[in-house]
Amino acid sequence: MPVGTAGTVKGIRFEELESKDLDARIILGNTYHLWLRPGIDIIRNAGGLHRFIGWDRALLTDSGGFQVWSLGDLRKISEEGTEFRSHVDGSLRFLSPEVSMEVQAALGSDIVMVFDECTRSDATHEETQRSMELTARWARRSKNAFGELQATGADTGHVVEAEGLSGTQALFGIIQGAGYLDLRQKSLEHTVEIGFDGYAIGGLSVGEEKSVMFGVLDEIAPRMPKDAPRYLMGVGTPEDLVEAVARGVDMFDCVLPTRNGRTGQAFTSRGKLNIKNAQWAHDGRPLDESCGCSVCRRHSRSYLRHLYMSGEILASILLTHHNLAFFLDTMRGVRQSIRSGDFPKFRREFTERLSANGE
Amino acid sequence: MPVGTAGTVKGIRFEELESKDLDARIILGNTYHLWLRPGIDIIRNAGGLHRFIGWDRALLTDSGGFQVWSLGDLRKISEEGTEFRSHVDGSLRFLSPEVSMEVQAALGSDIVMVFDECTRSDATHEETQRSMELTARWARRSKNAFGELQATGADTGHVVEAEGLSGTQALFGIIQGAGYLDLRQKSLEHTVEIGFDGYAIGGLSVGEEKSVMFGVLDEIAPRMPKDAPRYLMGVGTPEDLVEAVARGVDMFDCVLPTRNGRTGQAFTSRGKLNIKNAQWAHDGRPLDESCGCSVCRRHSRSYLRHLYMSGEILASILLTHHNLAFFLDTMRGVRQSIRSGDFPKFRREFTERLSANGE
Repeated sequence: MPVGTAGTVKGIRFEELESKDLDARIILGNTYHLWLRPGIDIIRNAGGLHRFIGWDRALLTDSGGFQVWSLGDLRKISEEGTEFRSHVDGSLRFLSPEVSMEVQAALGSDIVMVFDECTRSDATHEETQRSMELTARWARRSKNAFGELQATGADTGHVVEAEGLSGTQALFGIIQGAGYLDLRQKSLEHTVEIGFDGYAIGGLSVGEEKSVMFGVLDEIAPRMPKDAPRYLMGVGTPEDLVEAVARGVDMFDCVLPTRNGRTGQAFTSRGKLNIKNAQWAHDGRPLDESCGCSVCRRHSRSYLRHLYMSGEILASILLTHHNLAFFLDTMRGVRQSIRSGDFPKFRREFTERLSANGE
Repeated sequence: MPVGTAGTVKGIRFEELESKDLDARIILGNTYHLWLRPGIDIIRNAGGLHRFIGWDRALLTDSGGFQVWSLGDLRKISEEGTEFRSHVDGSLRFLSPEVSMEVQAALGSDIVMVFDECTRSDATHEETQRSMELTARWARRSKNAFGELQATGADTGHVVEAEGLSGTQALFGIIQGAGYLDLRQKSLEHTVEIGFDGYAIGGLSVGEEKSVMFGVLDEIAPRMPKDAPRYLMGVGTPEDLVEAVARGVDMFDCVLPTRNGRTGQAFTSRGKLNIKNAQWAHDGRPLDESCGCSVCRRHSRSYLRHLYMSGEILASILLTHHNLAFFLDTMRGVRQSIRSGDFPKFRREFTERLSANGE
């Protein structure tokens, strides 16, 4: 899922997201950001987030839990919820499972995430357990509030023109527990017991070692319900995606293709490429000779480097487009190889190729 | 002509420039900027500016004269040419008619502009005369140098795939003389005497009153050769364009649609619209209800305001697209009305509508 924090996947038009090059079926919006700006009144009046931004395909919104947690000293977490100061206007705000569900109903996203507490990757076992249990209580409150809102038809998600969407919101639970496998296991049990339309693994890719992340995935992913989507939040690099799929994960969101695109980093089938490097100044080749996206069909590394060095917006636009094409192509390749029974081969060849550039 | 200073029309992809919405047949590149960065070696090695940037349609390049003149105290003008310090790396550079022609041959632009000296709008008659006569001598040197370069096939402009372009460069002369009609008249005579493929009026829209600009156009445009394109450089607002056409001008370039788009100003059939204004916060209407561009078909003022207030790149992208669509549509309307003999009616209705918003 490309990340569309403030109701826009940064640096790219919706027409491009829908184009054959990218064909993104779902994007992510951030409840925290949209709640603070432009605010829920404006989005509700527009008829929900789909209509407000002009996107008929699927939308997933996070709960705001991760964003307020990221504020560090600027927020205060209690049993009831999280109090924090808005980064937009400094006002005191309060986010709880009930508020998050209400905001996400107004956004009308197709997939709603429960309000959870993320845990520091270096938290003790005791701290992590306390946090994980709070997440479990918040998950139950989220589900109750979500149910009431659905029953009263409060959500705006009934987009008539949507592509194959029911107009009914789905609710996903989130498994926490940092790197402690016993707590992850407990969190999984709590979450499945409450019961959700899909299950996410949260609290990874927040500073821990890669081995910790894959340790959690090895242990938890195979035990997640087989008949519901498995979503690994906030991950990751192309190799992380393929490795997580190998462990049973279905869905991902990550800012890497867009954020790194804006800072001059291209992801290619032969590894990362920093467009700022002088070695590309005269290089007439596309970013990735194996890529068929509109950027690689038309523009050279030399030109892209020139745009980047000149501070031109088009550098961000084109690198973002290519990076999203590469990530989405990778996932298309993953799905195809799974269908044809060739995933192990795909995984091996993909990984070998990635290190070819050695940059 | 959309302005593509550094080899990119800021904030828009070439695919959009070619799309039905915009269908820009020619864009402008700045010799000064491209010469300093990425430099002529890189562009020549790529096979010229068309190939370097990936644009097969027509390109006009200015001579760099206006840009170095704009440097003010940072440049020294002599009979030979202009010495200045690069804004990119501070190095001492020298631009002359011969250098400008050489650079523009390497760029391979379809329309090359002579190297001229612009004149301050508040210059005395004597200063203006001296400057205008220098421009005339530089025009002759430009034509001589251009001819030699053409004879030796030094230009890279022979793009095989180009749409209906001969691959031969054209050279345009520039009429100077500030607001002094007698000097403008002299400059016109000098320029026509040397003989060019097209004729431009330079040195307007550089701080003088509107009435001075239209005074010059009233006097000079009708006397320009009828069988060659007439190009008003660096102008202007939509109303300026229509008024200049009424006086006989054929071609324009201006940064207004792109630059103002990036600062939140939309041009519409009912006048300018500042997207920052709070009055648009809840407004579900498109920027311009009479506009059929992809931005107006899909996005509301409310959403565009949100993007702008959030500092999102997409605000620049979408406002730039709409503004270019409006300018290019205006010129399409002008051409159509001239062909059908309805230009006076078009001009009257266009002008009346522009003041409808009253912003």
